[in-house]
Amino acid sequence: MSDISKPVIGIIGGTGSLGSGLAKGWARAGHQVIIGSRAAEKAASAAAELGFGIEGDSNWAAAAASDIVVLTVPFSNHGAILGEIKPAVDGKIVVDTTVPLAPPKVSKVQLPEGGSAALITQRLLGETVRVVSAFHTLGAAKLHAGERADCDVLVFSDDKGARNTVIALAELVARRGIGGGSLANSAAAEAMTSVLIWINRQCKITGAGIAVTGLEAAQQA
Amino acid sequence: MSDISKPVIGIIGGTGSLGSGLAKGWARAGHQVIIGSRAAEKAASAAAELGFGIEGDSNWAAAAASDIVVLTVPFSNHGAILGEIKPAVDGKIVVDTTVPLAPPKVSKVQLPEGGSAALITQRLLGETVRVVSAFHTLGAAKLHAGERADCDVLVFSDDKGARNTVIALAELVARRGIGGGSLANSAAAEAMTSVLIWINRQCKITGAGIAVTGLEAAQQA
Repeated sequence: MSDISKPVIGIIGGTGSLGSGLAKGWARAGHQVIIGSRAAEKAASAAAELGFGIEGDSNWAAAAASDIVVLTVPFSNHGAILGEIKPAVDGKIVVDTTVPLAPPKVSKVQLPEGGSAALITQRLLGETVRVVSAFHTLGAAKLHAGERADCDVLVFSDDKGARNTVIALAELVARRGIGGGSLANSAAAEAMTSVLIWINRQCKITGAGIAVTGLEAAQQA
Repeated sequence: MSDISKPVIGIIGGTGSLGSGLAKGWARAGHQVIIGSRAAEKAASAAAELGFGIEGDSNWAAAAASDIVVLTVPFSNHGAILGEIKPAVDGKIVVDTTVPLAPPKVSKVQLPEGGSAALITQRLLGETVRVVSAFHTLGAAKLHAGERADCDVLVFSDDKGARNTVIALAELVARRGIGGGSLANSAAAEAMTSVLIWINRQCKITGAGIAVTGLEAAQQA
């Protein structure tokens, strides 16, 4: 489909705040980006507004035309949209950003049965899909302002190669991408998102994020 | 029992690495600290080695003589030790640092039934105990070296006053103490500890921690 060094990225639910922010960040870095939405026309007009050569199409078509598929959809639509794109993602990297929020108490950690959204995604898509979980704690405001986010992105997967590919994508839109272990560990970042929502409300800010401290020792070693 | 501005702190399981590191940090800051262990003699000799006027006693006696009781015990002993100290902590702040690790896979998130160690503690101690959850992601090395840890401490509780008291204690031993919401949110920090263990192993370091980014906007506001 494309140059292996610049995979085509499809963003499912890409008309939302996080999806369109990531689209702009990766398109600016030279990736071809296709945002998907339920309705192809809505995706196309949102893509035109974003600029940077970003295209829009239906969720299925965006997934089918991409090398890497990124899910940025509400948890309430998560299962249905996975069913929609499943025929188009076999063998591909699917990056799940889903935070399992349970409205109205979105500032309270309420992990789903099965432990995490990412583990549900792997189960629904099957073992031939390379599921990676990332970008939960990333605020989109800086991406829309044309900057990289000043926080780290934790990246989880059982597939080391896929994890490293997504770490590199994270470094285009945030301070650092940092591997956080297996897909089961995604629960930590999914839960932390409710903590950050709580901190945002408490401090009357919008952009609380997470950074990993103590890595300087590794860089010096 | 003591001056309200300098509560006496009892550290249950205080002969371990985190417990004795916290003991030194708080004792240096002027708190009276009593470390507890199964055997009073073992606690007393460990306390004498720590210096700073730290005392040692049995877990029950340390809890009974303290205003604030801090639990630094392995998850495998957690329930038994809560039963031991329960008669001594009614109405007090109990700070739970317990990470629900499931050996041998300690770098894999495996949250317990009930959602988190902190929620289990509240259930076992009952509603009259002011349970606060904190210090999960704090490495003890800097505390033993006589410094504050260069990371943030997330502090969770359903009791706002107790949460604020522990935030102040956190700021004596780490960069910042930051409220993270209700006790249910402790799951995020408990899970993150396995992620940090994974990062430590991967990067061949010992001190990975967590910081919250984006708070500068709140401080300026």
